[in-house]
Amino acid sequence: MKEKPRLAITMGDPAGIGPEIVAKLLRLEETFELCRPIVIGNRETMNKAEAIVGEPSAAYELEHFDNVKDHTWGEIRADFGRAAADYIERASKLALEKKVAAMITAPIHKEALKAAGVPYPGHTEMIASLCGVSNYGMMLAGPSLRVIHVSTHVSLAEAIRRVKPERILNTIRLGHEALKREHIASPRIAVAGLNPHAGESGLFGDEEILYISPAITEAQNEGINASGPYPPDTVFVQATKGKFDLVIAMYHDQGHIPAKLLAFDNSINVTVGLPILRSSVDHGTAFDIAGTGIANESSLLEAVRYAARITGEN
Amino acid sequence: MKEKPRLAITMGDPAGIGPEIVAKLLRLEETFELCRPIVIGNRETMNKAEAIVGEPSAAYELEHFDNVKDHTWGEIRADFGRAAADYIERASKLALEKKVAAMITAPIHKEALKAAGVPYPGHTEMIASLCGVSNYGMMLAGPSLRVIHVSTHVSLAEAIRRVKPERILNTIRLGHEALKREHIASPRIAVAGLNPHAGESGLFGDEEILYISPAITEAQNEGINASGPYPPDTVFVQATKGKFDLVIAMYHDQGHIPAKLLAFDNSINVTVGLPILRSSVDHGTAFDIAGTGIANESSLLEAVRYAARITGEN
Repeated sequence: MKEKPRLAITMGDPAGIGPEIVAKLLRLEETFELCRPIVIGNRETMNKAEAIVGEPSAAYELEHFDNVKDHTWGEIRADFGRAAADYIERASKLALEKKVAAMITAPIHKEALKAAGVPYPGHTEMIASLCGVSNYGMMLAGPSLRVIHVSTHVSLAEAIRRVKPERILNTIRLGHEALKREHIASPRIAVAGLNPHAGESGLFGDEEILYISPAITEAQNEGINASGPYPPDTVFVQATKGKFDLVIAMYHDQGHIPAKLLAFDNSINVTVGLPILRSSVDHGTAFDIAGTGIANESSLLEAVRYAARITGEN
Repeated sequence: MKEKPRLAITMGDPAGIGPEIVAKLLRLEETFELCRPIVIGNRETMNKAEAIVGEPSAAYELEHFDNVKDHTWGEIRADFGRAAADYIERASKLALEKKVAAMITAPIHKEALKAAGVPYPGHTEMIASLCGVSNYGMMLAGPSLRVIHVSTHVSLAEAIRRVKPERILNTIRLGHEALKREHIASPRIAVAGLNPHAGESGLFGDEEILYISPAITEAQNEGINASGPYPPDTVFVQATKGKFDLVIAMYHDQGHIPAKLLAFDNSINVTVGLPILRSSVDHGTAFDIAGTGIANESSLLEAVRYAARITGEN
């Protein structure tokens, strides 16, 4: 029998729901059927979380960091920002050294990272930097839809300026590679338009003609099964019906609106373009409910399933 | 017992699926329980449609126009564009003269209208003009979501330029009035942001601070239960969970992506700001399947239900 993949799971910000959802994940027998989990975090915090949500269903490995003093729930703390960053660094190192097959991350808090002087706005940028990669992206994946964006956290006006052939082509390539990694032989990639009705032949904007179509043509020339540009308000419906494996969204909300509507609890983030595999929950630290035991581990479980599915088949 | 409302139903472009879906609607007993339908169209075309989909479940009134010669399915024809416009004119007149309680429209074809020299891109503009109204809008309504847009058929770049306080406030007011007409006492109106995370305090764009928030404040001062700006990728989820009655979308796809994803078959359009009530299917003429009998009448039925619900209670 093949060995189960060893997966590093970071605990996230100690004050958030990360410890609880990791503890809830460890209560599930499925987790141990999918992988050998190694939690990167703090023993006392995990004990506290387990006291709230219940004991794990099997023994698990924990790489303990002695970096949580006077634990509290629901607070922005510089020491916790630093702790969360330590876990990410460690998990990335384990993945780069191939001591784990993939890393899965629980949520961190931007303000806590900032208070700790960590020079990254979030996981994706930090992990990319630790991997020495500058060309990367984030894919949202839910039960019926995968989306990757040409741009994300910029104003809509700036997002429009970034709709240029090189950037679109690069995003198509990143998505193509990510889906190949998922063992999809010839991923069907739909490229959304920017404007209503994909511009309706230039009537409502010309970015489709000037920038998007040339990028699609170039991708096709490279042998990628890309098509479009499609009207943004119907392409996601088509994708959920199984017509496409991935939609390339032109800006943050074009992809996030359908992704969140379709799978608020079950969608995950995947960083694409990395030498390692990293999947993540698609939600924040939820400080308002941390420590109450009501946080939902569905997204974390999906992130583990995703990593196990890919690494377990290699 | 109260009398059922008399509703005018236009047949739409004779070459499209309009005649069939009207014929399918008339097969339903529910239609006659909801209203007294008066179809505005052509007798021979309706006969042809009924031969395909089956006989109506009760006798219905038809206002016949002798404007369809040599009927064909699935073709763009100037005479059919003219015919479709005639039906709309007539139904609008009946509604304005209060001879019907509302008008419901089947799909027309933009190119056919254009070929006929009809100076309007679609229903909404034409009906508004016939009503002598210049301040109007279009609301998308589905089973779990209502959306109205600050702008629709313009490029995304132009849509951003239209995100200004007067226009936003006007859209909020139109939505508020439309929902009052639906007998909702104090409609809960969510205003979406323009940028990712609604700008995150100016980090990703300042339109929320400069234009959207002031419009919301002004609406509140007028006694309207408006709030926001909310992050675009979560506000629609909140609305579908029942937290809001209406979402004000800042541009076409922001509202159309979730509306189409949630209710591809059952969503309708409602023109707001008119002295008459007009609801409509939310789809086109589907020339590719016209005459085959497979077109779905769900959206048309929803449009009838909507009009009957409002006018039946007055």
